[in-house]
Amino acid sequence: MRRIENFRSIIDKYKVVFFDAFGVIKNYSGLVPGIEKTFAYLESEKKEYYIVTNDASRSPVQLAESYHKMGLPAITQDRIVSSGMLTKEYLDLKVQDGIVAYLGTLDSAHYIERSGLHTLPMSEVNESNFDKVSALIFLDDEGFNWCDDLNKAVNLMRKKTIPAIVANTDRAYPLSATNVSIAIGGIAAMVESVVGKQFIRFGKPDSQMFMFAYDLIREYRQISKSEIVMVGDTLNTDILGGNKFGLDTVLVLTGNTLEKDVETRITASGIMPTYICESAVVDLSGLDF
Amino acid sequence: MRRIENFRSIIDKYKVVFFDAFGVIKNYSGLVPGIEKTFAYLESEKKEYYIVTNDASRSPVQLAESYHKMGLPAITQDRIVSSGMLTKEYLDLKVQDGIVAYLGTLDSAHYIERSGLHTLPMSEVNESNFDKVSALIFLDDEGFNWCDDLNKAVNLMRKKTIPAIVANTDRAYPLSATNVSIAIGGIAAMVESVVGKQFIRFGKPDSQMFMFAYDLIREYRQISKSEIVMVGDTLNTDILGGNKFGLDTVLVLTGNTLEKDVETRITASGIMPTYICESAVVDLSGLDF
Amino acid sequence: MRRIENFRSIIDKYKVVFFDAFGVIKNYSGLVPGIEKTFAYLESEKKEYYIVTNDASRSPVQLAESYHKMGLPAITQDRIVSSGMLTKEYLDLKVQDGIVAYLGTLDSAHYIERSGLHTLPMSEVNESNFDKVSALIFLDDEGFNWCDDLNKAVNLMRKKTIPAIVANTDRAYPLSATNVSIAIGGIAAMVESVVGKQFIRFGKPDSQMFMFAYDLIREYRQISKSEIVMVGDTLNTDILGGNKFGLDTVLVLTGNTLEKDVETRITASGIMPTYICESAVVDLSGLDF
Amino acid sequence: MRRIENFRSIIDKYKVVFFDAFGVIKNYSGLVPGIEKTFAYLESEKKEYYIVTNDASRSPVQLAESYHKMGLPAITQDRIVSSGMLTKEYLDLKVQDGIVAYLGTLDSAHYIERSGLHTLPMSEVNESNFDKVSALIFLDDEGFNWCDDLNKAVNLMRKKTIPAIVANTDRAYPLSATNVSIAIGGIAAMVESVVGKQFIRFGKPDSQMFMFAYDLIREYRQISKSEIVMVGDTLNTDILGGNKFGLDTVLVLTGNTLEKDVETRITASGIMPTYICESAVVDLSGLDF
Repeated sequence: MRRIENFRSIIDKYKVVFFDAFGVIKNYSGLVPGIEKTFAYLESEKKEYYIVTNDASRSPVQLAESYHKMGLPAITQDRIVSSGMLTKEYLDLKVQDGIVAYLGTLDSAHYIERSGLHTLPMSEVNESNFDKVSALIFLDDEGFNWCDDLNKAVNLMRKKTIPAIVANTDRAYPLSATNVSIAIGGIAAMVESVVGKQFIRFGKPDSQMFMFAYDLIREYRQISKSEIVMVGDTLNTDILGGNKFGLDTVLVLTGNTLEKDVETRITASGIMPTYICESAVVDLSGLDF
Repeated sequence: MRRIENFRSIIDKYKVVFFDAFGVIKNYSGLVPGIEKTFAYLESEKKEYYIVTNDASRSPVQLAESYHKMGLPAITQDRIVSSGMLTKEYLDLKVQDGIVAYLGTLDSAHYIERSGLHTLPMSEVNESNFDKVSALIFLDDEGFNWCDDLNKAVNLMRKKTIPAIVANTDRAYPLSATNVSIAIGGIAAMVESVVGKQFIRFGKPDSQMFMFAYDLIREYRQISKSEIVMVGDTLNTDILGGNKFGLDTVLVLTGNTLEKDVETRITASGIMPTYICESAVVDLSGLDF
Repeated sequence: MRRIENFRSIIDKYKVVFFDAFGVIKNYSGLVPGIEKTFAYLESEKKEYYIVTNDASRSPVQLAESYHKMGLPAITQDRIVSSGMLTKEYLDLKVQDGIVAYLGTLDSAHYIERSGLHTLPMSEVNESNFDKVSALIFLDDEGFNWCDDLNKAVNLMRKKTIPAIVANTDRAYPLSATNVSIAIGGIAAMVESVVGKQFIRFGKPDSQMFMFAYDLIREYRQISKSEIVMVGDTLNTDILGGNKFGLDTVLVLTGNTLEKDVETRITASGIMPTYICESAVVDLSGLDF
Repeated sequence: MRRIENFRSIIDKYKVVFFDAFGVIKNYSGLVPGIEKTFAYLESEKKEYYIVTNDASRSPVQLAESYHKMGLPAITQDRIVSSGMLTKEYLDLKVQDGIVAYLGTLDSAHYIERSGLHTLPMSEVNESNFDKVSALIFLDDEGFNWCDDLNKAVNLMRKKTIPAIVANTDRAYPLSATNVSIAIGGIAAMVESVVGKQFIRFGKPDSQMFMFAYDLIREYRQISKSEIVMVGDTLNTDILGGNKFGLDTVLVLTGNTLEKDVETRITASGIMPTYICESAVVDLSGLDF
């Protein structure tokens, strides 16, 4: 575990960089100041990069658009690996037909639809379609009435033996400098504990997130895990998951982990990044750029 | 563990009977048919009895009234020990002044008020009174907006080091023959896991419920634990808690535990009642009554 | 939560003081220096006191003797409330006859024996006595072969539906200034998770420990919970349990919680003592004593 | 979820078959009777197969040899994917040098050694080599003194911020028709809970096991997840993990899940195999073979 002053020296050591989104590239008020320099440097050095994010609220296309609006055109749809994409893969492989009941927004649901598989908000599940429901998906904390629809979800899962998929494991997300919101991962854990059945979860720290990104790269080139570095702001998702998958890891201090807590948290959790760096912003000074 | 045909023979062995409420005396559609005979027999035999119930939705006075309306005048206010009463005792002993923020109905909150201690629904906590909030209480799953007020509760507990009290540990309760509702205990567990602080819980199987009832009796007479029997329909609250407190226990099959599951559940959980009885209804036939 | 300089001023406010043992009165190398002054003051002021300790390794008589040997004759057998005593009460009330298999030392087992109830080390359970085993008790981490006897305990609990009692909930205890030992509570939790049945636990923070001490006092005098203070070194046992039972609590910094960590730990856990005091040692200077 | 009479019809639908070892191919007394016919059929049909097993007690070479001795020469070293192999990959990628302290047998440790990385049984860790210890590995429940070495492991992990790797997540394994043994996964969970740090686990149901096997195949051919079926006897490892990875799954009833419990367990856990089949034995009758 080493302190690194300039994030550039980390990029220089690896062929591919995985970035967490929230707390690394952006936060509640927009882009992390200066982060566009990092992507300029990556492009200039022809290094590959991917955004590996616990997010099932929107499609990769929509996620990419939101970066463009913030002023980061470098992040295109094909650079994004989201827990929503793993959920879609699961449905494509494992749920042949029927209705997928969901908790989330319309945007989150549209992405997982496909021919032969309809999505239906939990609020519209009723006696006439109950028999056709073949899976329940937890997509987003918005877009539904918590009290009504969570109680409906509990009773659906008690009565039917169907898979329940949690498309984002996070229990909370930051809303502002001082406030957080309960995330769909926290809500799903409550429903799971009331129902007493085992739900399927997608998202860091689970290896399947990293494998999905790793596979994307290997479709067109050879790469070893030792040539990839994972950059994140959260010890128990980004760093733990990256370490377990066999990647080197960088903890940055622009999000969940603050400078004043970093030593205490690493010692308390036993989760060690390969490097600690103040931010993922590249200092371009002294470069002919 | 013995099968008992007639609940009367159990009453005959003990001086005091503790009853769980839901699944033993009443269910979602009213009184358990015939249960009034049990209380008639208890009165005729001059046996003491108490209702020991995980309920913080109303005061003991209101709980007693609801039995009277259902046709069971025998259950008076002084016969009821609720987890709401333990919450009130905790506040009286440990929270001197300030505002108690709560999640629940007006009825549930009125009961815990006292001079010097105001209650305020979570929805009304704001910048002007934030500093005065000295405790947070989870009382009932009704009476508030889940999404808005649970997010407010999470942020209150993140920012202030104050006690959070869960006045009912149950994670779900039956709503009809086929449906359940998420209970305030399940909701509070979600908030606790997001906040990461330790909440204080009142309710069976915790011993403090049984101790409260035991103390009520001892205020005016001597009694040994071996002279009390606990009657319940749920292994992991009524029976586990009664056993641990040192009481003999009766599992009845009119609520959460069904005849067809009883052997499997006892073996799987390792929680053994002293007796199993079809119901808590006394068969008065053959009695001069 | 207030900082108190002199522990004496706390004693002066209450009629009864409950002390945790390890980290408050003694540590791995003997008595906490100066603690005898506290007991001298308590005696001079005719204040009652009790030692409320998670310990099932020896009888109260033997525990008292060990204090006498260390130079603290004030702590007599009747001043001690141990989790071993709750275990004995449970067996007296709930296990009529048969053999109680145990994991622990001979000393720990002798205490729970009584007429009609034999104890047998797990290592001596075999085909000839298997049918008569009516309970399993986890008493102490010493006195048995972990590998052989824990595997035997797992299979005993899988095959028989009998109660398993954990006589001390602690997961670890300090062995020296730098080392800890796994305690019987940690070992029992492993067996419980492998077996999948629910064990019965005695020890702080559970209320039953405090109730046992409270009942001892009430046998000969009236006392309110507001007249008792609990003194401990551990937030999640002594302080959490004392608070929940309705007692005022003092956190001392001579054991598990160090001065440098105290603010962080209180904020992180949300467990607040009524007072924080450097130690439970009374400063007698300025007193006519 | 469909009942299948002849396992052959399942093989016929897929290009690759993953088998769990214990409870599917072998049990405590040797091979599952008739299982050699399955491998004869697989060979005759030129179908690929892999053994995907939670086992870190021996190297793949030694695991293969044990099948040969039992009379199953078809299972060669390159057909085996074990959680021990994932542990070795982790060490190769993430632990550059120093000493790896281990709990397990000599056999289990030899396999993970490599140039630059020494292994040392926990019992031999002492003051002279303490500084050089760079990881702790839980390999096997045999080969060490549980009491002494687990206490040493607890104190090692409390004092050093190094990774702890659990090379087999299983909490127990069958020893005979009636008895189980505590497995290293159960032991490691106890150490983890006492230490309070986050350990790294390898083994089903975690996706990384399935990915490792999937990658082995893709080194020399193209394959889709929909062309692979996972066969196992345990719902919460083989079936849950296979499902989540996107594979079709077969639950066989020759191991942990018995015919009489299968419906109850699927309903209770919510974990659904694609097929249920009495065993993985192929009925060759009616085949020109």
